[in-house]
Amino acid sequence: MHPFAHHSSDSVSALGEAGLIAAIRRWLGNASPRAPFGIGDDCAVLPASRGRQLITVDPVIYGRHFDDTVPPRAVGAKLLKRNLSDIAAMGGRPVSAVLAITLDARVSRRWLELFYRGLAVAARRYRVAIVGGDVAESRGTVAACLTLLGETAGPRVLTRSGARVGDWIFVTGKLGGSRATGHHYRFVPRLAEGAWLARRAEVRAMMDVSDGLAKDLGALTPRGATAVLDESALPCRGNADVRAALTDGEDYELLFAVAGRADGDALRRAWCRRFPTTRLTCIGRFLPARRTARPGVVLKEYRGYEHFR
Amino acid sequence: MHPFAHHSSDSVSALGEAGLIAAIRRWLGNASPRAPFGIGDDCAVLPASRGRQLITVDPVIYGRHFDDTVPPRAVGAKLLKRNLSDIAAMGGRPVSAVLAITLDARVSRRWLELFYRGLAVAARRYRVAIVGGDVAESRGTVAACLTLLGETAGPRVLTRSGARVGDWIFVTGKLGGSRATGHHYRFVPRLAEGAWLARRAEVRAMMDVSDGLAKDLGALTPRGATAVLDESALPCRGNADVRAALTDGEDYELLFAVAGRADGDALRRAWCRRFPTTRLTCIGRFLPARRTARPGVVLKEYRGYEHFR
Repeated sequence: MHPFAHHSSDSVSALGEAGLIAAIRRWLGNASPRAPFGIGDDCAVLPASRGRQLITVDPVIYGRHFDDTVPPRAVGAKLLKRNLSDIAAMGGRPVSAVLAITLDARVSRRWLELFYRGLAVAARRYRVAIVGGDVAESRGTVAACLTLLGETAGPRVLTRSGARVGDWIFVTGKLGGSRATGHHYRFVPRLAEGAWLARRAEVRAMMDVSDGLAKDLGALTPRGATAVLDESALPCRGNADVRAALTDGEDYELLFAVAGRADGDALRRAWCRRFPTTRLTCIGRFLPARRTARPGVVLKEYRGYEHFR
Repeated sequence: MHPFAHHSSDSVSALGEAGLIAAIRRWLGNASPRAPFGIGDDCAVLPASRGRQLITVDPVIYGRHFDDTVPPRAVGAKLLKRNLSDIAAMGGRPVSAVLAITLDARVSRRWLELFYRGLAVAARRYRVAIVGGDVAESRGTVAACLTLLGETAGPRVLTRSGARVGDWIFVTGKLGGSRATGHHYRFVPRLAEGAWLARRAEVRAMMDVSDGLAKDLGALTPRGATAVLDESALPCRGNADVRAALTDGEDYELLFAVAGRADGDALRRAWCRRFPTTRLTCIGRFLPARRTARPGVVLKEYRGYEHFR
């Protein structure tokens, strides 16, 4: 669906700012509490946190993260899920969000309503309260920026740091072909998986794969190590080949390091009991960088998704 | 300063994404802690809050909130200060922020460096940690969206609700002419004033004036009341007339209601001792809406700043 209205009477400009904000409240419904705990005051008031907090921010921008082929409800859900994937990657639990939207005055009310209703459904599903926001006008733009607050789901926060030489490299689900298959907006953020993994002592570091494995894996690789991947083990989505699995991006899967001396079979058995339908794959190992001759994928020959390239 | 580079070698595209993120970290310096408490992981980790929290989000968009006449350092500072003004309006104290920036690849590195350095100076001044962010590319866009977290500075959070019929209406500083005088980016957010007012029991409700008094005052006006303003008392900035003071917007002053039976002189004396250089003006009163004949400004004849109009 195209975000712009054919007739100005169907556009957000026909609503005016006050009408637009009233409509947004209606569309969000009980996904947004009342002021001062939600939309309607200078700030939203949040209760004291129960422990350490997590915060992340990600946008969706027309022409970049979605186009006319993506249903507007799915755009709203994707905006939240992109951020949920970051919370999942730390082993956290989402709590609340604020949303700043920037719109051309010609954007259609119908498109926007579906966007917000899709966001609201996802917010209720993942128990995220949309507590505040901002609307601004900018010619030629359809963009929304969501900031998500979360909390730690267990005693540990898993970061990108902590992997060591000798650790095994695991990934959830499948990689590649995200755009072609619609996975980039249909994916389910790995919240339960992330929280579970953060409770496993043998998991040392974790992140989500959003810009493609070849690029993202660099952030997990410890100093003095090289990530050596087993090409044949890479879990490719649909028709995706190794290059696609390494570079397409928007996988929103969890990538993590498991202690080299850990009992990999025990981890795998426990995973299968807890997540019987979610694939878990050991795709390689962090080996000392000084060893030169080795089999496997040479990651520097691949590049993930990069802005400003 | 124009945000776009004359030559592509001076643009952010010449940096590439990784180079840009490294540069942003350098420009922010100690205004941004290291991961996992700052930029560099999927989420930033924040310590547990000390009490109730405040959250707000506001953008700056090229052509809307700034143009080539605004120095890029001032654009960065304005982005933070717009949000600080919202924290001030609740009587809160700022803590940390995340920043999502959307840029055309042709934006100049120099412009962006000055933007971030200006933001960093303001962040250090107001003790705000820039803990995370996102960079995305979008053609024709120079926009940044900042989400600010705060905490309550005292036992009370002042909201827009709470004013009653008979309450006096006060405003800090001066109104109008914000664009013409550069006040819209030179203003100092009223953090100390807001925290002080939240500790005064006679202050019943508060907000900041950002879209113009005529529009914003509606949100403070209790049911069954009309705001009756004394035209001659309106504190106009520079050459601003009454219309400008009521409708220009971007004043970033505090507007608040004081209990009708309170000792106004005592409040004023205490204010002058604490804030000797900041003007405080009683501009009117909330009177019963059913009284028809009254002197003063008829607010519905004025409109503040509205998007999508």
